[in-house]
Amino acid sequence: MAIRINLKGFIEFSSDLSQVAQDIADAIKEANKTFKEVGEEGAEIERYSIDRKRLKLELRSGRVLRAHDALLRLKNQLARRLGPKRVGVRKVFIEDLEVIISEGHVGESKAKELLKGAAEAREIEGNLVLRFRDLTDRDIRERTVDRAIKLSLLREEKVEAKAEKLAPFGAVIKRGAEKPFKLSTRVASEAERLGWIKRYPARGQWIYTPPMAALLRAISELLIERVAKPLGFKEWMFPRLMPIEVFKKLSTYVEHLPEGVFYVCVPPRDPSKFDEFKREYRLRRELRTDLLKEILSEPQYVLEAIQCTPFYQFFSGEIVRLEDLPVKAYDLLGGWTWRNEAGGVEGIVRTNEFWRLEMVFLSSPEE
Amino acid sequence: MAIRINLKGFIEFSSDLSQVAQDIADAIKEANKTFKEVGEEGAEIERYSIDRKRLKLELRSGRVLRAHDALLRLKNQLARRLGPKRVGVRKVFIEDLEVIISEGHVGESKAKELLKGAAEAREIEGNLVLRFRDLTDRDIRERTVDRAIKLSLLREEKVEAKAEKLAPFGAVIKRGAEKPFKLSTRVASEAERLGWIKRYPARGQWIYTPPMAALLRAISELLIERVAKPLGFKEWMFPRLMPIEVFKKLSTYVEHLPEGVFYVCVPPRDPSKFDEFKREYRLRRELRTDLLKEILSEPQYVLEAIQCTPFYQFFSGEIVRLEDLPVKAYDLLGGWTWRNEAGGVEGIVRTNEFWRLEMVFLSSPEE
Repeated sequence: MAIRINLKGFIEFSSDLSQVAQDIADAIKEANKTFKEVGEEGAEIERYSIDRKRLKLELRSGRVLRAHDALLRLKNQLARRLGPKRVGVRKVFIEDLEVIISEGHVGESKAKELLKGAAEAREIEGNLVLRFRDLTDRDIRERTVDRAIKLSLLREEKVEAKAEKLAPFGAVIKRGAEKPFKLSTRVASEAERLGWIKRYPARGQWIYTPPMAALLRAISELLIERVAKPLGFKEWMFPRLMPIEVFKKLSTYVEHLPEGVFYVCVPPRDPSKFDEFKREYRLRRELRTDLLKEILSEPQYVLEAIQCTPFYQFFSGEIVRLEDLPVKAYDLLGGWTWRNEAGGVEGIVRTNEFWRLEMVFLSSPEE
Repeated sequence: MAIRINLKGFIEFSSDLSQVAQDIADAIKEANKTFKEVGEEGAEIERYSIDRKRLKLELRSGRVLRAHDALLRLKNQLARRLGPKRVGVRKVFIEDLEVIISEGHVGESKAKELLKGAAEAREIEGNLVLRFRDLTDRDIRERTVDRAIKLSLLREEKVEAKAEKLAPFGAVIKRGAEKPFKLSTRVASEAERLGWIKRYPARGQWIYTPPMAALLRAISELLIERVAKPLGFKEWMFPRLMPIEVFKKLSTYVEHLPEGVFYVCVPPRDPSKFDEFKREYRLRRELRTDLLKEILSEPQYVLEAIQCTPFYQFFSGEIVRLEDLPVKAYDLLGGWTWRNEAGGVEGIVRTNEFWRLEMVFLSSPEE
């Protein structure tokens, strides 16, 4: 019994409820029976009253059938029961929702930091009490409360992983004969000295001249012919401009590394929006990035930082037959990959703009 | 005598000028002699006076040696002459600069529109009068006045081009045997039907699956082996993220098509700037692009729209020996090119994100 929830709210209907008072009484009785089927961790409607078009409610629950979810269920049952009588549901509203966590919580100050703007957090006699106000139907469906509860709990220990069939990350599986180093200087500085590469005027970007481009092409062809193709990988070509709605699915990046990617803004199609910007340039040869920022949309894309995104997106919403698996892909034609991290890695090895061949596949769990 | 310029301003020095009054008188006399060497279109210092540290001046000029340029020249002469006497120039300032254009101007309303924020424009008895106030040394050196004058003049007719040695654009030089069309449907819809391409969830972007990627690779290899290499072009690899300072040099784009490119914003390196953004995502699974726009820098890059930019940038500030020319380049390894114009061109032929091989070269004028 680590979590208790107390809810105070109402369901608003399209007309006065006095005509259907008996139906409501019946529905609540019935709901209370099913809500308790899961036992202690279920929900209970403690109190209700009718106030013209509003059905006012107080619920309490444990962690399994949560009070706010029970409220939505009740709403659906009432909608089904009262619909034929021409009484429709207009709105669900929670004025006050209190979550009391008695064990394994993160404590008041951490909870305050994590839930800022969504809920109040207070510690009372060892319990962490979260208080939400004015929640709508949408808030419940979007699971804001549940996510807040999850963030307020200490992470449970991970379950022991099953014995690994794959080699652990970083393990050396086979070692070839030692090769002599032919170059004792740093690759990037030597390439720059030879004119094989030249800096582009921004951090972490290079122009590769013919010798370096030839070297890259040779290496990539070796990788394709000797590694990718023998392993059954086929060449695809993936976009590099990742729409924000695709980025939204990369929760690791959004939650933990939003500072690691480049964001792309789209200009309005109406050229007159640029009048002042153009005038400033024409007159003063100044390119006013402050004006640009005003003119541009909010970011609509992210530059590809991990290359495999479009491969997974390709299968989004698709059902794939097991006999069509595995699907194995690599992409070189799409070009560069970008990460906002220049300086972290030496020379041309990994810069803001870097080139790589990634092999990704989709297969059955057994494989 | 289509342009007359009247200037009122001062040069400020590091100390009182009464000690060097004779030097100033000599300098001005000398300057006036040289300023008039170009005749009517030269400049003249009409009046001057000394007010403690300031040398107040009134100049007038024609279009060749312009009054504001004459003022800078005078400043340099005085700096050389007075420097050894420990009187240094501190600042040049033009309180009022009037440009009277009597012929071939664009008219008051057009001039007002073009010069908004830089100068007043009024038409008086057929003359267009531009008035600039409070110009600094920097304004003069940045040629704001001259650019404003240029914009206020009707464009002159283009001088007849010399007889073309090259075939005019669009001319058919040689015609091969007619080839039969093997496909009567649209290429993009047929490729989509076959599963060779699939839309990425944003306008003008596609994922190319193995058959389409193989087709592209085959076509590009044909182009390289049969066209690029026989013509002496070599493979380079160019960045696709164009820094704003490079974009600034593409005046055609900045002045006429700033709405045609995608702009890239860099996030701050300090992860704490993203705290609210991350919290909103964690709690509500909402990716708040409005918060992102606030957090991000002004645009620092543009996505490559013409592909040849880095090639020209490569030679910026370099001196190339004639015997090293021509330099011929193509780039495929860098991948996509982007233009904000989806919808303008059908299917995959040219979309927001498209793939192409561009051949560029640098050679002597004779070639």
